[in-house]
Amino acid sequence: SFIDRLARRWEQAGSLLCIGLDPDPARLPASLRDSPDAIYAFCREIADSTADLVCAFKPQFAYFASARAEAQLERLLAHLRERHPDVPVILDVKRGDIGATAEHYAREAFERYGADAVTLSPYMGRDSIEPFLAYADRGAFLLCRTSNAGGADLQMLDVGGEPLYQRVARLACGDWNRGGQLGLVVGATYPAELAAVRALVGDMPLLVPGIGAQGGDIAASVSAGQTPAGAGMVINS
Amino acid sequence: SFIDRLARRWEQAGSLLCIGLDPDPARLPASLRDSPDAIYAFCREIADSTADLVCAFKPQFAYFASARAEAQLERLLAHLRERHPDVPVILDVKRGDIGATAEHYAREAFERYGADAVTLSPYMGRDSIEPFLAYADRGAFLLCRTSNAGGADLQMLDVGGEPLYQRVARLACGDWNRGGQLGLVVGATYPAELAAVRALVGDMPLLVPGIGAQGGDIAASVSAGQTPAGAGMVINS
Repeated sequence: SFIDRLARRWEQAGSLLCIGLDPDPARLPASLRDSPDAIYAFCREIADSTADLVCAFKPQFAYFASARAEAQLERLLAHLRERHPDVPVILDVKRGDIGATAEHYAREAFERYGADAVTLSPYMGRDSIEPFLAYADRGAFLLCRTSNAGGADLQMLDVGGEPLYQRVARLACGDWNRGGQLGLVVGATYPAELAAVRALVGDMPLLVPGIGAQGGDIAASVSAGQTPAGAGMVINS
Repeated sequence: SFIDRLARRWEQAGSLLCIGLDPDPARLPASLRDSPDAIYAFCREIADSTADLVCAFKPQFAYFASARAEAQLERLLAHLRERHPDVPVILDVKRGDIGATAEHYAREAFERYGADAVTLSPYMGRDSIEPFLAYADRGAFLLCRTSNAGGADLQMLDVGGEPLYQRVARLACGDWNRGGQLGLVVGATYPAELAAVRALVGDMPLLVPGIGAQGGDIAASVSAGQTPAGAGMVINS
């Protein structure tokens, strides 16, 4: 299963670090700018240079979509599977739609791109998640407490004595997770809330963005989010 | 603005109906199945046959994404702009991400595809919406009370005396909507909640899916969701 592969990789690489592949066209090196596969080449180089240090790769779909680079994303995932088969790939798509539509998104992520896991929004509820879980060897990280300031607008609302993000955490590690395929997205920018989620969810994997540019502190995040075994986190800058 | 164009179209077409363009490969006519642009041709034919009866078109991104048909989606939107310039196109993508990423999704929807409006998830809050609103002549429909059964999992939770979907409705017609570009997605499957949203949001446009296959009743929906002027709705089966 995805969670087993991730756990094996934590052990094997001795690393909780995830490399985000967010190919902003403005940041591509000049040497690549005129190449028709610049985005692919840029991401491949980053991945090949860091693979031994990481527990996962996380391509951000938006950067490929705005650049008409879906074919390059397909090539990138094919390359990662071939060259770095032990490193799971989390496709950051934040999908969330009704069941029939979610089936198409699951097909896109898992069959077309061959991702090991995706990110999903919980707003439309359990039946919007299930089509992804029908792929028993794949995983999904649900948005819980996100790293951005606006995350508080809904996620910190009190629902029956707990903030909404904690309700999402409890749903995600209860009934919604019968196949043991779920993780949660919890921003490094809110270490107290990261610790609160960890206390609720046992060993569930947490995808933790927001280190660095967004202001999250790595030591505080690891301390708040790791499991007793020193694992359980996928940390992304 | 998008809302003005939509209002003009309600008036001009005398219709609240929106045609969804959800090209399920299993439903393509046999005559098209071997064509490399079957998805484009299928959707174009539906759109050209119905354009005079509708207030909007709504392509569902997932069906194009699972079929590697982004280029066909580009062609389709170019065709709709050229042949049916008075009919707004709502690209159903349900995006929701941090600001820098949302900028790329906005560029994809509004520059690459040239959509008039998008659907968005509110879970990540106001700063995840704003990059779309930076396109002053475009619009966005926020998920509020969705048509699926699982929608209740989060959207019906009580937050300070009102269900979460009503809080989203109040946010969307308050501070979040300074430029007057927002609408809401409220399922036809819950007419009482559709009426509750209408009571909260004045004349704000509501995108109402769930008629037909999902079980929503059109008369009950129109009665619950229309404005006093008999407009304000984009009804999708």
